[in-house]
Amino acid sequence: MQGFTFYERVSKAFHHSSTLSKLVLLFTVSGGTGALVAYADANQGNGGAYIGSSETVPEKKKVVVLGTGWGSTSFLRNLNNAKYEVQVVSPRNYFAFTPLLPSVTSGTVEARSIVEPIRNIFRKKKMEILFSEAECFKIDAQNKKIYCRSNKTNNLNGKEEFVVDYDYLIVGVGANVNTFNTPGVEEHCHFLKEVEDAQKIRRTVIDCFERASLPEISEEEKKRILHFAIVGGGPTGVEFAASLHDFVNEDLVRLYPGIKDFVKITLLEAGDHILSMFDKRITAFAEDKFNREGIDVKTGSMVVKVSEKEISTKELKNGGEITTTPYGMAVWSTGIGTRPFIKDFMKEINQANRRALATDEWLRVEGCDNVYALGDCATINQRKVMLLSSVMSKAGAEARRNFCPAPLEPQEALASEDISAIFKKADKHNSGTLTVKEFEEVIKDICERYPQVELYLKSKQMRSIVDLLKEAKGDVKKETIELNIEELKTAFSKVDSQMKFLPATAQVASQQGTYLAKCFNRMEECEKNPEGPIRFRAEGRHRFKPFRYKHLGQFAPLGGEQTAAQLPGDWVSIGHSSQWLWYSVYASKQVSWRTRALVVSDWTRRFVYGRDSSRI
Amino acid sequence: MQGFTFYERVSKAFHHSSTLSKLVLLFTVSGGTGALVAYADANQGNGGAYIGSSETVPEKKKVVVLGTGWGSTSFLRNLNNAKYEVQVVSPRNYFAFTPLLPSVTSGTVEARSIVEPIRNIFRKKKMEILFSEAECFKIDAQNKKIYCRSNKTNNLNGKEEFVVDYDYLIVGVGANVNTFNTPGVEEHCHFLKEVEDAQKIRRTVIDCFERASLPEISEEEKKRILHFAIVGGGPTGVEFAASLHDFVNEDLVRLYPGIKDFVKITLLEAGDHILSMFDKRITAFAEDKFNREGIDVKTGSMVVKVSEKEISTKELKNGGEITTTPYGMAVWSTGIGTRPFIKDFMKEINQANRRALATDEWLRVEGCDNVYALGDCATINQRKVMLLSSVMSKAGAEARRNFCPAPLEPQEALASEDISAIFKKADKHNSGTLTVKEFEEVIKDICERYPQVELYLKSKQMRSIVDLLKEAKGDVKKETIELNIEELKTAFSKVDSQMKFLPATAQVASQQGTYLAKCFNRMEECEKNPEGPIRFRAEGRHRFKPFRYKHLGQFAPLGGEQTAAQLPGDWVSIGHSSQWLWYSVYASKQVSWRTRALVVSDWTRRFVYGRDSSRI
Repeated sequence: MQGFTFYERVSKAFHHSSTLSKLVLLFTVSGGTGALVAYADANQGNGGAYIGSSETVPEKKKVVVLGTGWGSTSFLRNLNNAKYEVQVVSPRNYFAFTPLLPSVTSGTVEARSIVEPIRNIFRKKKMEILFSEAECFKIDAQNKKIYCRSNKTNNLNGKEEFVVDYDYLIVGVGANVNTFNTPGVEEHCHFLKEVEDAQKIRRTVIDCFERASLPEISEEEKKRILHFAIVGGGPTGVEFAASLHDFVNEDLVRLYPGIKDFVKITLLEAGDHILSMFDKRITAFAEDKFNREGIDVKTGSMVVKVSEKEISTKELKNGGEITTTPYGMAVWSTGIGTRPFIKDFMKEINQANRRALATDEWLRVEGCDNVYALGDCATINQRKVMLLSSVMSKAGAEARRNFCPAPLEPQEALASEDISAIFKKADKHNSGTLTVKEFEEVIKDICERYPQVELYLKSKQMRSIVDLLKEAKGDVKKETIELNIEELKTAFSKVDSQMKFLPATAQVASQQGTYLAKCFNRMEECEKNPEGPIRFRAEGRHRFKPFRYKHLGQFAPLGGEQTAAQLPGDWVSIGHSSQWLWYSVYASKQVSWRTRALVVSDWTRRFVYGRDSSRI
Repeated sequence: MQGFTFYERVSKAFHHSSTLSKLVLLFTVSGGTGALVAYADANQGNGGAYIGSSETVPEKKKVVVLGTGWGSTSFLRNLNNAKYEVQVVSPRNYFAFTPLLPSVTSGTVEARSIVEPIRNIFRKKKMEILFSEAECFKIDAQNKKIYCRSNKTNNLNGKEEFVVDYDYLIVGVGANVNTFNTPGVEEHCHFLKEVEDAQKIRRTVIDCFERASLPEISEEEKKRILHFAIVGGGPTGVEFAASLHDFVNEDLVRLYPGIKDFVKITLLEAGDHILSMFDKRITAFAEDKFNREGIDVKTGSMVVKVSEKEISTKELKNGGEITTTPYGMAVWSTGIGTRPFIKDFMKEINQANRRALATDEWLRVEGCDNVYALGDCATINQRKVMLLSSVMSKAGAEARRNFCPAPLEPQEALASEDISAIFKKADKHNSGTLTVKEFEEVIKDICERYPQVELYLKSKQMRSIVDLLKEAKGDVKKETIELNIEELKTAFSKVDSQMKFLPATAQVASQQGTYLAKCFNRMEECEKNPEGPIRFRAEGRHRFKPFRYKHLGQFAPLGGEQTAAQLPGDWVSIGHSSQWLWYSVYASKQVSWRTRALVVSDWTRRFVYGRDSSRI
């Protein structure tokens, strides 16, 4: 019992001064193992056993991060607050620079050159970070627990399951490949999401060439084996097609001279054009270049079935005719789907009819507390100014729902009143009408909270919201504008049509990670001095500014040392100069000096010695 | 019919002048496709269809090479005779610089840096070389055919079988791992023979560290998972243990600080010492160094069973006590065994009771024609001077048979008469006795044909055979020595005891490949002017000099930038200077400038950035 009161006394001293804690530790160590265990327990954060004072100990808040992709890694790199205890759970113990994956398929860059152990990223931090190589298979937001299972591949060690508690959960697990339930894709197609995928593709390309070189293989069979079908004309599919073409024409033809004439690369795209998210000039250039080089670009061609040796497409241009083509290797890159455990989680939090985890503008997952999501597994559900039905026609909303489901009904009902809340907040004197002066006081907050307003103005080439109000009121002088609630609704009636969903790119995920880390770094500070916009539907201000994506441009490497670049302001550049821009941007964006040196040396090596064709 | 006689006439012109052949080809091309096909058929070497004159066309002899290891690649690199048509069959389309495999397990060197596509090695040659990525599964020496099957791993393409005819067959397929039928080894141990093995070991090491870092793993389990057991104290096992120790202590402990104290490396060796083929000074140094560094060297410890999580050893020093130890990863490197299809082939040619394909000193496989073997799958059956039983005691011969079975009975019977043949050949005047003068005329040939004679002299520190004769005759003057057949037998009675089997090393295989290529390059030339020693049992000379191995020394890297080197003349060097010797020798021995640059850059990278710990 003496020991018990001793602990009590120590525990009081303990949370009065944090520098004392080290001394206490030293003291308890010399006090015997019993004391040491008690101290260790208290620090485990499991609502642990600090005897008699579990509520009063200033425990570190536990941040659990799922994933080691762009979002999570960017969060971890920028997190800098020693008040958190961090645990990262991911099946990959490394971060991969995914934009270079197509280069890995052809050996222009080595797989190892684009990965960095996640522990290396932590190591320099003065924070408590624990990494567990495991997959999360269930999120229990109610009890703030996640359920994990370690990788199953290593049969020497069996599989382990464990539970992790959290105070904050950051979900950055990325996405699955979306097969659109096309039969045979899962079994017969290669994907290009992970480093292992790229390595497998590389080996398979060589396999195809070796197989076609065997004696007693008929010409027809050679043609089949050397037919590379790429499904999906997005940036990944196009870059892979281009890099495969380069690999074949710059390196493999010299080693396999007898069979070079049998090689065929086909790019299948269901839409009307490849690279449809890019400027038309880029699309046209890419299509021309590919056709000139003999890459068969088939647009309006939707893959409906993949069997072991044949791929069946529905030719949308020819009235839906079904064509079947033999192939040797097929690569599927047509967009992303939701991971199964995320789907389960979405059901639990009433997001079952969505494509990805819906978050608010602060990246907080809707429908639960203290869970954040970023990157490909999440989508920001931008707050609307108006009720959806008043903005869009029924049919339009329906169409949109098919791709990115609209928010849930209860939220819509609330959202419908935002315009009223704005009006109420702006109308300080409760006069029932808004003057321009009154409005100008809240303009900044409106634009921050509802970025679609600014986008709408840009799209209409208006300089300020006043122009918008003017339009609603007819041609009057700025000073005399005075609107009632109905007139304000008219003025704002179309702004929500400018809401855009962010693309599932590394750039978005990375910016979200940085944003979220900054929020976490200043959590206490901003609690006291909130820096966000006014809360229109409540008192005070939001703690943080909402996340805003800044598009820095996008590249589409087209092979033969030519790259298309679309930079902000619709600045388009195509050709060798953009290739060098691409080299410098991708080198500078590497996560460490080590990977930077490796990637640059890989490029140099490729220039000097070409690409390796060993089947490893 | 006109076409027919036209071909006949062309075919005659054809083999009168080889320079004509190109003209003829051009001519027939312009003569239409039919002619072209006929020409192509005639060149396929399948006993083809050169109409009406298949016997008279000077067909290229077809050399089929099995394997792309040290022996085969060295043969291919040095072969330089356009009169052969070459086909290489191997499941690996690359040559791997295997001495660096232990470095690959720890990421000191990348797998891709030590491989070179075999087609790259051909490409610069002005020879017709065909490569087929396939495995030979049957040799039919009777009909000069081999049966092949392409790799089964690629399920997209199914498996293909095909038959290849040959005129000469070069077997350089290497060896299997020898598990000595120890239960559980095949299922639970890693091997270190192929590049893929090294990559798998690397991933598994990281797996073990990640697994041990998971929460809720007991200390006992951590200890098990981080116990690395290495079976076999030969150069490979020792180097792997050393490089694993460096990887753990130089790189992994920084990233996994919490678990470093649980790591244990055990080296199990059945014999009394590790590195037993090296000088005792090296063995002692290595054992000391390992013990100092905490690598547990257990000699006299024979593994008898491996289960999923435990390894059982018989402690030969403790009266055969069985000890069972938990382990996380086990690597098996205890010597080599015979590949199954080679075993089948050996049965076919009456070599069933041997360990490896027996060849004569010209690397020709005994018991069949036109088949050559080199490297780990072969062993040179050195011709004996005397009958075995007269040289060795019955027991000694028995013991030897267990490791390297003695030659077959019929050959022994013949071999027993070699001494008589030598006597007969040397005794030009059939006087029944040999004078020193007569003997001196054939000394060179004897030493060339029976290298054990020279080795025996060296071991006895005698300067010439005359000393040997002197010994047999007692202390007499050189000029007066005159021996009859029985006295010669006495003199030579112990020379065969010096016969040594060549070690299964890259060095031996590589020298054999070079030797064989040189023979093939000068096949016709030496047919006319044989350069080998006198045939003692027949007329004339041997076509070529027999193969003689020149030992250039051997390295044993011991980790921590220290290497033991044993160079010819028993010159021993241990330490940092030998490490630099090792670096320079291994860099210079690389097969191409590309791999040389890569290996050196890998070493540099390791110095600067350490080894990567990503699990890929």
